[in-house]
Amino acid sequence: MVKQPISPPESHNQSQEPEKINLPRTSESEDLKKIRHTTSHIMAMAVQKLFPEAQVTIGPWIENGFYYDFENSEPFTEKDLKAIYKQMVKIINRKLPVIREEVSREEAERRIKEINEPYKLEILEDIKEEPITIYHLGDEWWDLCAGPHLENTGELKPKAIELESVAGAYWRGDENKAQLQRIYGTAWENPEQLAEYKRRKEEAMRRDHRKLGKELGLFVFSDLVGPGLPLWTPKGTLLRTLLEDFLKQEQLKRGYLPVVTPHIAKVDLFKTSGHWQKYKEDMFPLMAENSEAAKLENGFVMKPMNCPFHIQIYDNELRSYRELPIRLAEFGTVYRYEQSGELGGLTRVRGFTVDDSHLFVTPEQLDEEFLNVVDLILSVFNKLQLKNFKARLSFRDPENKEKYIGSDEAWQKAQGAIRSAVDKLGMEHFEGIGEAAFYGPKLDFIFQDALEREWQLGTVQVDYNLPERFKLEYVAEDGSRQRPIMIHRAPFGSLERLIGILIEEYAGDFPLWLAPVQARLLPVTEAQLDFAKEVAAKMISLGIRAEVDTSGDRLGKLIRNAEKQKIPVMAVVGQKEVESNSLSIRTRASGDLGTMSVSEVLDNMKNAITNYSNF
Amino acid sequence: MVKQPISPPESHNQSQEPEKINLPRTSESEDLKKIRHTTSHIMAMAVQKLFPEAQVTIGPWIENGFYYDFENSEPFTEKDLKAIYKQMVKIINRKLPVIREEVSREEAERRIKEINEPYKLEILEDIKEEPITIYHLGDEWWDLCAGPHLENTGELKPKAIELESVAGAYWRGDENKAQLQRIYGTAWENPEQLAEYKRRKEEAMRRDHRKLGKELGLFVFSDLVGPGLPLWTPKGTLLRTLLEDFLKQEQLKRGYLPVVTPHIAKVDLFKTSGHWQKYKEDMFPLMAENSEAAKLENGFVMKPMNCPFHIQIYDNELRSYRELPIRLAEFGTVYRYEQSGELGGLTRVRGFTVDDSHLFVTPEQLDEEFLNVVDLILSVFNKLQLKNFKARLSFRDPENKEKYIGSDEAWQKAQGAIRSAVDKLGMEHFEGIGEAAFYGPKLDFIFQDALEREWQLGTVQVDYNLPERFKLEYVAEDGSRQRPIMIHRAPFGSLERLIGILIEEYAGDFPLWLAPVQARLLPVTEAQLDFAKEVAAKMISLGIRAEVDTSGDRLGKLIRNAEKQKIPVMAVVGQKEVESNSLSIRTRASGDLGTMSVSEVLDNMKNAITNYSNF
Repeated sequence: MVKQPISPPESHNQSQEPEKINLPRTSESEDLKKIRHTTSHIMAMAVQKLFPEAQVTIGPWIENGFYYDFENSEPFTEKDLKAIYKQMVKIINRKLPVIREEVSREEAERRIKEINEPYKLEILEDIKEEPITIYHLGDEWWDLCAGPHLENTGELKPKAIELESVAGAYWRGDENKAQLQRIYGTAWENPEQLAEYKRRKEEAMRRDHRKLGKELGLFVFSDLVGPGLPLWTPKGTLLRTLLEDFLKQEQLKRGYLPVVTPHIAKVDLFKTSGHWQKYKEDMFPLMAENSEAAKLENGFVMKPMNCPFHIQIYDNELRSYRELPIRLAEFGTVYRYEQSGELGGLTRVRGFTVDDSHLFVTPEQLDEEFLNVVDLILSVFNKLQLKNFKARLSFRDPENKEKYIGSDEAWQKAQGAIRSAVDKLGMEHFEGIGEAAFYGPKLDFIFQDALEREWQLGTVQVDYNLPERFKLEYVAEDGSRQRPIMIHRAPFGSLERLIGILIEEYAGDFPLWLAPVQARLLPVTEAQLDFAKEVAAKMISLGIRAEVDTSGDRLGKLIRNAEKQKIPVMAVVGQKEVESNSLSIRTRASGDLGTMSVSEVLDNMKNAITNYSNF
Repeated sequence: MVKQPISPPESHNQSQEPEKINLPRTSESEDLKKIRHTTSHIMAMAVQKLFPEAQVTIGPWIENGFYYDFENSEPFTEKDLKAIYKQMVKIINRKLPVIREEVSREEAERRIKEINEPYKLEILEDIKEEPITIYHLGDEWWDLCAGPHLENTGELKPKAIELESVAGAYWRGDENKAQLQRIYGTAWENPEQLAEYKRRKEEAMRRDHRKLGKELGLFVFSDLVGPGLPLWTPKGTLLRTLLEDFLKQEQLKRGYLPVVTPHIAKVDLFKTSGHWQKYKEDMFPLMAENSEAAKLENGFVMKPMNCPFHIQIYDNELRSYRELPIRLAEFGTVYRYEQSGELGGLTRVRGFTVDDSHLFVTPEQLDEEFLNVVDLILSVFNKLQLKNFKARLSFRDPENKEKYIGSDEAWQKAQGAIRSAVDKLGMEHFEGIGEAAFYGPKLDFIFQDALEREWQLGTVQVDYNLPERFKLEYVAEDGSRQRPIMIHRAPFGSLERLIGILIEEYAGDFPLWLAPVQARLLPVTEAQLDFAKEVAAKMISLGIRAEVDTSGDRLGKLIRNAEKQKIPVMAVVGQKEVESNSLSIRTRASGDLGTMSVSEVLDNMKNAITNYSNF
C-alpha cells in the first residue's frame, strides 16, 4: 500500500510559481546518482538510529529518487517518516565524510556477521566481482554499495530532499519471503529541482490515463480475462474507431490497401520469418495438443507481429513491377507475453493493435516511398496536436551482430536509406545504436510529453531481410525476377499506447474531433427539454456526437457533471435561448462564449471538427 | 486425387432442359438408402468380377451417392470405370435377389477367412452388436452390411446410376496404413433425379466459393499460416468492411454500443462461463508456459465465443434498470479448433468473425427486445437479397439434460420466450430438439441456397444461465438487486461463412452495393483514356468504386476481362460517347442498356447503391 507523500517540515513556499526548469535525468547524471546513493545511506543510518532493531536490505537509486527496504517489526508511520527526515537533516549537518573501502569477500563476511545482518550476507553472495566495496558514513554506519557517492554528507541540501511514502515489499520480490518496509524518497541538486519534480508528479497524477480512463469510462480490466488485456467500453471503442477511421482515410488517399489476417499461425511461419528464433521469449506460449507436439515445436502461436502474414498475401501470386509499390495495411492486434510485473494501464499491454502497414517496393521506389511514409506520419502527428517529438535513427549495434538477422550488406543498405531520407528532409534526429529491430534498422519517432517523459510512437523500418527469408520476388521490366524491399511502418505504433499517451497529453480534454461526446445540451428546466432534444437531433443528423442531460438536476450540477466528463461544448438552454433559437455556449478550450444562434453553433462545430481544431 | 466424373454410356439427352424437380434427401429417404446400399454392393461385385484380386473394404451411402474402397494393385482408370458400369448393368439385368442373413460372429469370421479378405476381419471386429448381418447378391457375392437393401437388383434403373470418380483413400483414413482406391458413384430413383443431381452438381461447381474466391481475388490460404485460417486480400477486406459497416449502421440506429475485447483470456474466465467444462475439445489448446501450469489448467486460451468478455464489461460497474437494455456489439474474431479434415473454404474455418451482440435486459424488456432483434435480422437478410430461409426453434434435448448447463426452470422460461416471440410474429418455423447451445435455446435462421443446400446463418439466443454463473445484477426501480437476462444474437453468424454463402448464392455476382469494384470504364482507344479517367474520378468523388481499364487491349478483351471479374457496371467509352458526354452501359444484372448521359449514369448508380438494388 502506497501512503501519502510526506512533506519535509522546512518545505519551501509552494504557492510561489516555480520557474519552468529542466530536470536532469538520473540515468544521465552522475551527480544525481551520487546524491541519491548518499541520501539513501543517510536515510538508512537515520532509520537504524531511531529503530535500532531495523535491518537494512537493498537501497538503490531510481529514476525519480531512491528507496530502501527495511525489516522492522512495525510498518513505519507518517510520524516515523517525519522523525527519520529530522534525523537525516542532523546527519547532513554533521558533515560526515563518505569513505569508500575495498575489502576481501571474507573480510566483508566477517564484518556483516559482527553486526548480525543476515540480509547483507545474501546480498554479498550475489556480488560476483571482487574487491567488495563498502561505503562508510563517518565511522558510525556502513553498507555494501557499488557507489558512486558524494564525498561528504554536508554536500546535500535538506530542502532538496523529501521522504515520499512507505510501501510493503517482499524480500527479493518473492511473496513467500519476508515482508519488508520500503521507504521511498527523492533527492535533487537544489530545492528548485525538488519543486519542479513535485509539480510534475502532481500533474502526472492529474493526467494519469489509468485514473482518467476510469473516470471517463474508456476501458476496463478484468481479473478473469487477465492482466495487460484491456476491454474497450463503448466510449473507448468510439475513440479507437475515430483514430482508426482517421488514419484509414489518410491511407486511402495514399494508395494503401487494407487487409485482414488471423491472430494465430503455425509456428512454421515464425520459424521462416525468424521471429521464433529471435523473439520466442516475448511471444505467448505455444498452443500444442500434447507435450509431444510441444517438443517438436509443432503447433499454433499468437502473432507478435503482422509482417509475415502480409508477406503471405504478397507472395500468393507472382507480382509484376507494374503493381509495385504494394502497400498492405491492417489494424492488426498482436499479442506479446510481457511479464505481468511490467504491465500498467495502456502503455504496456499484452494485446495491442498496431496500425501496421508493409510496403513492397523496388529499389528505385525505396527513397520516394520512405519519404511518403514519413510525410504521412508527420501529418498524423500534426492532426493529433502532438508537436514535441524527435526522430531517432535506430541502428544495429555493430558490437553485437549476433542479435540481428541478415547480411552486413543488407544492413548497410537499409541504414543508408534511412539516413539519406532524413538528410533529404532535413529532419532533426539523433542516432540510437543498438535500438534496431532484429530484422532491420528503424526511424523511430520519440514523443516527449508535458512532463518531459519520452514515449516511442511511430516507426518506419527498412527491411532487406524478410524478403530474403521468404524468397519474395517480382517480375522486373526486363522480365528478370527481382527481390522487393519491405518498409514496415506504423504512425501510431500501438493504438492502446497512443490512447494512453493522448489521454495524458490532453489531460482527458480530447480535441473536438476525437471527443466521444462532442456537445451536451443542458436544459435549465424541463420546459426547455424539447428544444434541447431538437437541437441535439439536428447536431446528430450533421454527424455531431451530441446528447441531452435529462437528469432534471439544477444547472450548476449539470455544468459540473459535463465539466467532469470533459465534454468540449456545453450548450445551456434557458427560456431566453428557446425564444431566440440560440444557445449559451461554454467550451473547454475557450471558456464562456456567450449566446450564439443555433445555426452559428452548428456551423462552427462542423468547421472545427473538419479542420481538427477546437471550438 | 479426384478424377473427372464418368458419364454412363446410355446417358439421357443432356441438352433437354430438365423440369425443376425436388431431390429426396438420403438422410430422410429409406428408399434412397436401399438404392445406394444395393448399388454399392453391385459395384463391388462388378469390380471383383473384373479384378479378381481386388479386396473390398468399406462402402457406405453418402448424401449424394455412395462409395466403396478397394485394395487393388493399380489405380482404376476411366476405362475401368466404364467397364465396371457395364458389368453393373449386367448384374442389374440378371435380377438377382438380395438376401439378408444373420450369422454368429464365429460363423462370419469363418466365412471371411474362407475367402481370404483380411480387411473384412478388421471391420468385423468393429461391429459390436450380434447377430452379424450379411447381404448376398444371389449366391455369387456377399458382404458384411447393416442394410437396408432392395429385394432384387432388378429394381434398380441403370440410367439412374452413374460412376463419378476415383480417388486415393487410406485404410481407416490413416496415412500410415494401406493406400486404397475409392470409387464414388451416385444412384437415384429415376433418371430425372440423376439429371437434376448432375445439374446441381455442375451449378455448385460453377458457384463454388473456393474457386470464385480465387478468381475474384478475395482471400487466400497459406500453408505456413495453417488450414482454416483465411487471409483477406484488399478486395476481400473491402467486402468484409462493406458488410460490417452496413450492419454497424443498422445497429447504430437501434441503440447498439460497439465494444472491443481481447482474443484471449485466462482459462478462469471460461471456467466461470462453463465453456471450459462443456466446450474444451472445440477450443484451441491451452497456452501454458510449462507442463506444471498446463496440468493446473492455468494459462491463457483463445476465445471460442465473445459472451464472457461482454459480460465483464457489463459487470464492471453497478448497473441501474434505467440503463437497460444494454446492447454491447462487437465484430469479434473467435477461434475454434475444428479438425483439419473438416476444413474447406470459408464455410468451415478455425478463425472467424462473429457479428456478435449481447443484450442485457430486464424480464419486462425480454419480449420487445427479442422482437427487435428478429426484426433486425429479417431486415439484414432482405438487404442481402437472401429470401429462402426458415426459422428453427433450437431447443434442449430433454433426454440428454447433462449436455446443458442451467436449471429446468431457466430452460423453460427461455424456450417459452422464443416460442412466444415466434408466435407473435406469426413466423413459419420448425422445432429442432437437441439443437440448443449448451447454455441456452436458440432461434436459428436456416438458409436454403440455390442448390437446396441448407446453411445456418443468423441466430438469437435467450440465456438465463450465464447471468446466473457470473452473478450479474442491476438495481431495479424498487432498489432491489435483480438478475438481467441475456440475449445473444448474430444476424450474419460468421462473416466468413456468410461471405462464402453469398459468393455461391450470387455466383460471384455481388449486388451493386457490395461489389468490390462497382464500375469499370472501358476506353475503346487511347484517345478516350482521359475522358474515362475523368468520369471515374467523378464516380469516386461520389463514393462509387470505379476504375479504368488502362491495359490498352482491344474492346472485346476489355469486356471479357470485366465480365470475368463480374463487375456490375461496364461503361464503354468511344469517340461518340466522349463527344456527347455519355457512356455506353452494359450491366451484369440487366445486360446492354445502350447510351446514357454521364449524369444519368451517376444518378442511377447512386440510387441503386443507396437502395441496395441493382442497376
